[in-house]
Amino acid sequence: MRLGVCYYPEHWPEAMWKDDAARMKALGIEQVRIAEFAWSRIEPSPGEYDWGWLDRAIDTLGEAGLKVVMCTPTATPPKWLIDRHPEILPVGADGRARAFGSRRHYDFSSPVWFEASRRICEAVAQRYGRHPAVAYWQTDNEYGCHNTVVSYSEAAVTRFRAWLAARYGNIGALNTAWGTVFWSMEYRSFDEIDAPIGTVTEAHPSHRLDYRRFASDEVRRYNLMQVEIIRAHSPGRPIAHNFMQLFTEFDHYKVAADLDVATWDSYPLGALEEQWYAPEIKARYLRTGHPDFASFNHDVYRGMSKLPFWVMEQQPGPVNWAHWNPAPLPGMVRLWSWEAFAHGAGCVSYFRWRQAPFAQEQMHAGLNTPDNRLDIGGSEAARVAEEIRTVLADPQADANARVDTRVALVFDYEAKWLFEVHPQGADFHYPRFAVEYYSALRSLGFDVDIVPVNAPLDRYQLIVVPPLPVVPDDFAQRLAQSGAQVILGPRTGSKTVDLQIPANLPPGPLAALLPLRVWRVESLRPNVTETVIFDADALPEGQARHWRDLIDIDAGATEIRARFGDGHPAWLTHDKIHYLASLFDDTTTAALFAQIARAAGLEPTPLGDALRVSRRGGLTWVFNYGPGTHRIDAGVPDLAIVIGQREIEAQGVAAYRTQHK
Amino acid sequence: MRLGVCYYPEHWPEAMWKDDAARMKALGIEQVRIAEFAWSRIEPSPGEYDWGWLDRAIDTLGEAGLKVVMCTPTATPPKWLIDRHPEILPVGADGRARAFGSRRHYDFSSPVWFEASRRICEAVAQRYGRHPAVAYWQTDNEYGCHNTVVSYSEAAVTRFRAWLAARYGNIGALNTAWGTVFWSMEYRSFDEIDAPIGTVTEAHPSHRLDYRRFASDEVRRYNLMQVEIIRAHSPGRPIAHNFMQLFTEFDHYKVAADLDVATWDSYPLGALEEQWYAPEIKARYLRTGHPDFASFNHDVYRGMSKLPFWVMEQQPGPVNWAHWNPAPLPGMVRLWSWEAFAHGAGCVSYFRWRQAPFAQEQMHAGLNTPDNRLDIGGSEAARVAEEIRTVLADPQADANARVDTRVALVFDYEAKWLFEVHPQGADFHYPRFAVEYYSALRSLGFDVDIVPVNAPLDRYQLIVVPPLPVVPDDFAQRLAQSGAQVILGPRTGSKTVDLQIPANLPPGPLAALLPLRVWRVESLRPNVTETVIFDADALPEGQARHWRDLIDIDAGATEIRARFGDGHPAWLTHDKIHYLASLFDDTTTAALFAQIARAAGLEPTPLGDALRVSRRGGLTWVFNYGPGTHRIDAGVPDLAIVIGQREIEAQGVAAYRTQHK
Amino acid sequence: MRLGVCYYPEHWPEAMWKDDAARMKALGIEQVRIAEFAWSRIEPSPGEYDWGWLDRAIDTLGEAGLKVVMCTPTATPPKWLIDRHPEILPVGADGRARAFGSRRHYDFSSPVWFEASRRICEAVAQRYGRHPAVAYWQTDNEYGCHNTVVSYSEAAVTRFRAWLAARYGNIGALNTAWGTVFWSMEYRSFDEIDAPIGTVTEAHPSHRLDYRRFASDEVRRYNLMQVEIIRAHSPGRPIAHNFMQLFTEFDHYKVAADLDVATWDSYPLGALEEQWYAPEIKARYLRTGHPDFASFNHDVYRGMSKLPFWVMEQQPGPVNWAHWNPAPLPGMVRLWSWEAFAHGAGCVSYFRWRQAPFAQEQMHAGLNTPDNRLDIGGSEAARVAEEIRTVLADPQADANARVDTRVALVFDYEAKWLFEVHPQGADFHYPRFAVEYYSALRSLGFDVDIVPVNAPLDRYQLIVVPPLPVVPDDFAQRLAQSGAQVILGPRTGSKTVDLQIPANLPPGPLAALLPLRVWRVESLRPNVTETVIFDADALPEGQARHWRDLIDIDAGATEIRARFGDGHPAWLTHDKIHYLASLFDDTTTAALFAQIARAAGLEPTPLGDALRVSRRGGLTWVFNYGPGTHRIDAGVPDLAIVIGQREIEAQGVAAYRTQHK
Repeated sequence: MRLGVCYYPEHWPEAMWKDDAARMKALGIEQVRIAEFAWSRIEPSPGEYDWGWLDRAIDTLGEAGLKVVMCTPTATPPKWLIDRHPEILPVGADGRARAFGSRRHYDFSSPVWFEASRRICEAVAQRYGRHPAVAYWQTDNEYGCHNTVVSYSEAAVTRFRAWLAARYGNIGALNTAWGTVFWSMEYRSFDEIDAPIGTVTEAHPSHRLDYRRFASDEVRRYNLMQVEIIRAHSPGRPIAHNFMQLFTEFDHYKVAADLDVATWDSYPLGALEEQWYAPEIKARYLRTGHPDFASFNHDVYRGMSKLPFWVMEQQPGPVNWAHWNPAPLPGMVRLWSWEAFAHGAGCVSYFRWRQAPFAQEQMHAGLNTPDNRLDIGGSEAARVAEEIRTVLADPQADANARVDTRVALVFDYEAKWLFEVHPQGADFHYPRFAVEYYSALRSLGFDVDIVPVNAPLDRYQLIVVPPLPVVPDDFAQRLAQSGAQVILGPRTGSKTVDLQIPANLPPGPLAALLPLRVWRVESLRPNVTETVIFDADALPEGQARHWRDLIDIDAGATEIRARFGDGHPAWLTHDKIHYLASLFDDTTTAALFAQIARAAGLEPTPLGDALRVSRRGGLTWVFNYGPGTHRIDAGVPDLAIVIGQREIEAQGVAAYRTQHK
Repeated sequence: MRLGVCYYPEHWPEAMWKDDAARMKALGIEQVRIAEFAWSRIEPSPGEYDWGWLDRAIDTLGEAGLKVVMCTPTATPPKWLIDRHPEILPVGADGRARAFGSRRHYDFSSPVWFEASRRICEAVAQRYGRHPAVAYWQTDNEYGCHNTVVSYSEAAVTRFRAWLAARYGNIGALNTAWGTVFWSMEYRSFDEIDAPIGTVTEAHPSHRLDYRRFASDEVRRYNLMQVEIIRAHSPGRPIAHNFMQLFTEFDHYKVAADLDVATWDSYPLGALEEQWYAPEIKARYLRTGHPDFASFNHDVYRGMSKLPFWVMEQQPGPVNWAHWNPAPLPGMVRLWSWEAFAHGAGCVSYFRWRQAPFAQEQMHAGLNTPDNRLDIGGSEAARVAEEIRTVLADPQADANARVDTRVALVFDYEAKWLFEVHPQGADFHYPRFAVEYYSALRSLGFDVDIVPVNAPLDRYQLIVVPPLPVVPDDFAQRLAQSGAQVILGPRTGSKTVDLQIPANLPPGPLAALLPLRVWRVESLRPNVTETVIFDADALPEGQARHWRDLIDIDAGATEIRARFGDGHPAWLTHDKIHYLASLFDDTTTAALFAQIARAAGLEPTPLGDALRVSRRGGLTWVFNYGPGTHRIDAGVPDLAIVIGQREIEAQGVAAYRTQHK
Repeated sequence: MRLGVCYYPEHWPEAMWKDDAARMKALGIEQVRIAEFAWSRIEPSPGEYDWGWLDRAIDTLGEAGLKVVMCTPTATPPKWLIDRHPEILPVGADGRARAFGSRRHYDFSSPVWFEASRRICEAVAQRYGRHPAVAYWQTDNEYGCHNTVVSYSEAAVTRFRAWLAARYGNIGALNTAWGTVFWSMEYRSFDEIDAPIGTVTEAHPSHRLDYRRFASDEVRRYNLMQVEIIRAHSPGRPIAHNFMQLFTEFDHYKVAADLDVATWDSYPLGALEEQWYAPEIKARYLRTGHPDFASFNHDVYRGMSKLPFWVMEQQPGPVNWAHWNPAPLPGMVRLWSWEAFAHGAGCVSYFRWRQAPFAQEQMHAGLNTPDNRLDIGGSEAARVAEEIRTVLADPQADANARVDTRVALVFDYEAKWLFEVHPQGADFHYPRFAVEYYSALRSLGFDVDIVPVNAPLDRYQLIVVPPLPVVPDDFAQRLAQSGAQVILGPRTGSKTVDLQIPANLPPGPLAALLPLRVWRVESLRPNVTETVIFDADALPEGQARHWRDLIDIDAGATEIRARFGDGHPAWLTHDKIHYLASLFDDTTTAALFAQIARAAGLEPTPLGDALRVSRRGGLTWVFNYGPGTHRIDAGVPDLAIVIGQREIEAQGVAAYRTQHK
């Protein structure tokens, strides 16, 4: 548990650096990320490197006792490089190359770009790989930000054809896998295949899905190139990348597998404004963010990180990039920081040290205002630094403490691509549904592991699977062997890996586990819901939204636990496996999960929409997102409070020693 | 009255064909449409034909006693053809060619495409023109689907110039007709004229309207080429095209004039979701479709078909292409089928025999599920097949029975283009208003003929004309001679054929019939309505929407029957001619139509929003779209029910012998 | 005070011209604008001029005693010119050239176009510069209409680079001013700089703002070219341009500085429909326009015009170009005309004499209908002509009377560009906020001068500054010296001229005047407001919207007069300077302005949302926009009414002799 900050020495007079470093240290900051956008200062003209300023900056930080997270500067290729090699620019779905003038203006598939990247990474890694102050590395910056994973350039199409050839072997296999006979879309060779854009009506869904898979693989290939260069020149320094919240255009699991640390950039207010939330939800959590959004991401990255995950960029005040940019309430920067640690973070690093007065992000707050006074976020960071010392001093705490939970939620990147390519209902938004299932679990007080579909499942008592169209062949067996109660969302097992309907209809291979047959589906427009009526389980009537699987069962084999108003099954159970035929309103989802959790031997603690509880090691944290105070009642008269107080103020945090029953 | 189905032998193992054919036959299906998307299988490489599989497929169907509707496969040119001749691809209003990878990726004006089409049509027609199993033909598939009528290619512009030269003779005549002096848009030769796109502000409306007319004529020219080839090789077999519901970018009357059978593709649920209906209407009729939408189209195509029209594709379950895709209620497939027959259909053909598990339409239901079990739609089709036998056995029924009505509604394709090009109010949506007028008539229990503006009108007692901007010179005389009560919607007679304001102001040539002068108009935003107050006619106060014609009359000549709140005339009558100065709310429109119908000697039967009644030959059909049961009360104690029961269940149908008074 | 009309002899048979001229004269019209779209008739083919028709048209008008406003025809380059030089066409942000076929299809930066314009202007000015009937000139037509100021052509980028070189001197200065170090966007020479479009995420805001400034300067350069040609050939004739309501893509102050008369085109109903107003406001003022919209523009152009400003085009009835086009209520054409005069207009010129029956604007009303009968607008113009005679005959009136006010509102074009480029909240709409402040002042009965930020301020007692991001260095001093009460909106002083945050934070240089520091800001989504609570001032609680500046003050120096619900200052006062930290609801803004006006010694007269009062010379005008009658109560029993009556009917006007207290 430590704090970090993102710092841009190139933005400030050199005269300020020493004071900045001293003030960081005094504030309790231990690590400083630098240089991810500094290419034009490192190499102002082709082949002419200017290392001096960066040497001095790193030295200054090192001398202050700070550890440096060194970055490769590939997110911002300089103008001279683009002018020499315009084919580096990515191409949009409109067939036009994007232009220089912001960032991420590169095509993962461009061979020229690949070589240029290799060269600058080599140069930086060689120079600083063994610098004593450089303790960690970051590759590039926020892969996928601004929708930059998929490019439709000639270079990309050329590599896509090779990718397809490798995947399918021969063109006949591809024609069969995709079903190109439909609409005479058959290909005679891989060279006939173009990017799936610009068609008269929707392009072939299997073609589109494969293009998305290909584009994701290109990110992995590119990142691995950087990782290998850094490992060669900077042995022993952990390598990270800063993923961005739900920028799910590539498979984060696969990229993280090549790294040492998965980190992410947490902007709870910007995310709330830009994500799917309804306007009234955006107003309710305006200045706190949604209580489950950052947590969801913490749990995503905790799962895929070899070392404890980090928040590489933590929102310190208002940002500039959402449609509207409110200010966090006092206390929220502290709350978000502790929330990250409670979910297992090794480091929380604020973005940025000081608000820059110029360029695109000049309205993005820092720990300090542009006139160099400590902002609220800065004060709260200082308080967190102090509290970290308190916590680490506690006998029940431990810097290496783990989050230990019995509940898993399966999250899958391909699922998102597939449902985007082939939604069948315009608002079938996979990340939203995954977060809603997660939110139901969190509102019941559970800690949750978020895992890929191929993760070991043996340690869990409850496994929740949001709509997962493609399931691996061994998934049914692994679910059964886990012994857990399993909740499957609608559309699970509804597609083969080639994006076809399974021969036995959905849930495909899961029918072995759960004898049912989805013989028909329907998507529901937003102003339509269906009633859900529970039978034996005394749950109140609920509402189903978005989707319905209509299901046949063999009499007796599978139990119908709830029905829609028209009699079709809404919740089916076979042994410990549960299938939900729709997406229910939040209250109903939570009630149903609570019921199943109890069957799994897990006792839920309903927390409502403002409180959240997390456990790590021997401590329990309580977070109060709401406008009122909350008194912790953990069933014991005297609670061993470690930070905060039993009466938690609005936007407050408390941690106490977990009572092991 | 017979049933058909759409079938894709190329999608399934040959081993299944025989069983498929036998099961079709057993279900009561008599005709099978095939091969409209099979080009890549018929001609897998340039000039190399593979007829074997198709020979066998047709033989299999023929041997089972099924008649084949053979198609030309031009809706899906194969990849090798596009790669050789990319100029076949149509060009969008953005100036970019569309890409291969779905369907309808061709430009009607491309000479290369025209020749390629001629070649494949010749090949197919030659091979199967006299095959005993081939009983009918279909040209291409759904002209205009996915907005493919208008292309802005160089080829199209070249042909447009020639089209203009033929229409106007000399450039001076065009300049005068269009009024190009306005904004210095004058042309010195036809060669100076471009496509009407990409302009700084709106392009010239006459230019745009002529481009739409040209594009429509190109469809006719293309279809006629196919028809002539088929007629040459397959004499005596009726030729059809499957039009698509309200895909009105070309003149269906003109294309149908070259065919033997007008058919259309009926998707009541997809249409409801994608058309103009308000969200609450979409929710109300979610799983039934709007009671007047399919009917409207039946009546459109009945009017233009030489032989009884068909439904070439009937929705059998959920589809895949609307924003949301609900499932039809049980009974609806039967109801829709009977509704088509009651409106005069010769055949109802379901799309498709079996749901395909792959490609774009894998979520489109068929009569059978992908695992080859009979779906609800299939069972209902079987019931319809049985009921057809019952009906045809009835003494009052007759396979050639006609729909005989005294009410006509004038529907015009150019009107739609004109109001799109030149709306003057953003929501002036011609098809919507035409369907609303139709719906008012249907809610009053009338059968309706939908006719072009040049149709004979003598047999009607009531003629309803939705907003019809351009009226032929002889229209006034024909209306007067008909002796019918005539209802003219607002904006009727408001433009000359060149899209100018008539010299005498609207209603232009109709002023001879109806002495009034529209001296001013206004369009009304959606949150504004105007009150309508009826004078002598004791109708309740109504609301006017969208539009107002402000009208001068010579005192005495024309009677004012209703006024807007500010005193301007809202309903005017002269002899039997009625002019409506606005579009009224549904209730008011129906009440007013009822009043005028009575004056025409036609007694309305108000049916509400769930029941509909249709008569064909000696039988009367009643359709119950609503959620409750309905008991037929036709004024006689014992009704001769032919199918169904007097107490009609929700989504039920009944037919009884019409009581001739 | 006189009336004019816009006339297009080229649209009508020559036989009609003489009668048209006579009827204009009889109606009371004194001046006629012609020929702004007549290029294709003046020069039908390259170099072949046809002056005959235009000579005769001007002679006809002159002989009828009418004065001609002669126009350069550059708004509509003819087809032959575009075909010869397609590089004249402007290029959109999508990189595509726009097409011929409407108007304004030219690029201000094209050197070919500049020369072609020079040539046609020379030709026209030479021929008619000294014609006795030609009394005035208009350059081009509505610069900026249809979003035509900014072009992204190669020609524009080339000139932009030179513009930057001139502004910054060397590339280092530009890099510093823009802060290109951020995201490695540094340039090595001006030639590396492109247009700020097509980037992956937002392009650099300083780059974008400078591009907007450049594009505005190009308009000025182009207009000045035309002015100089006309001045050379037509000495002594005032030169005008017709600006368009809030088409603020170029700096109207700068263009007007080169003209003699600033005129504008007033379309109150079209503007209401197309501007930011909420649907319910659009419905309320549907057929009158908003009471403060035309006034705002009158006051804008009064301020920048050397001679009394004109309305060059006055809406005479429904228009064709808004999404919906309602008809003005009877009386409104008269009311709008008098409103212009009361605000200082020298001329009100109606657009157009007669509605054209063809082309894009065929649905745009004129004073006469297309069948050449006088329309309502024409009758009302005749009444205004008569009333002008009455007013000018009044001893207290005076043709040269001035509007004399003590209230100024600062309006700035760069502010709009800056907030568009860099909004930070998606609905931060500068013109809207400026008009809302203006509306508050007008609802209190004040006449208002609208002035640029560099205007002399000494004559004012109350100065209102809507959000003004960049303030000149001397602004603080000039405000202080004025002795006026000053109201500064939020975000005032928030940026340097280079679009950076001021070193001392906002309000930057104004902090000298008003000791406060905006240490944080937040933008608020539309469904969020903040309460505003007034302290000593007994104003009711209000609501803040859109934005909040969070403010620090040195204790004592600045008084907090209102606070937000969470305690942050909402209204601060130091001496006579007031700072508003947000945008308040209309009622609160008006109440607060009234309070401050009283402190300035100005007594407000609350008028509500239907009445408006204006004073010019010795007369006071009252305008009744509302649906009811209004009796003037000016505190005296017998009012000297000059036009209208003391009891003003709905949509009525009255003028009386101002009671000087």
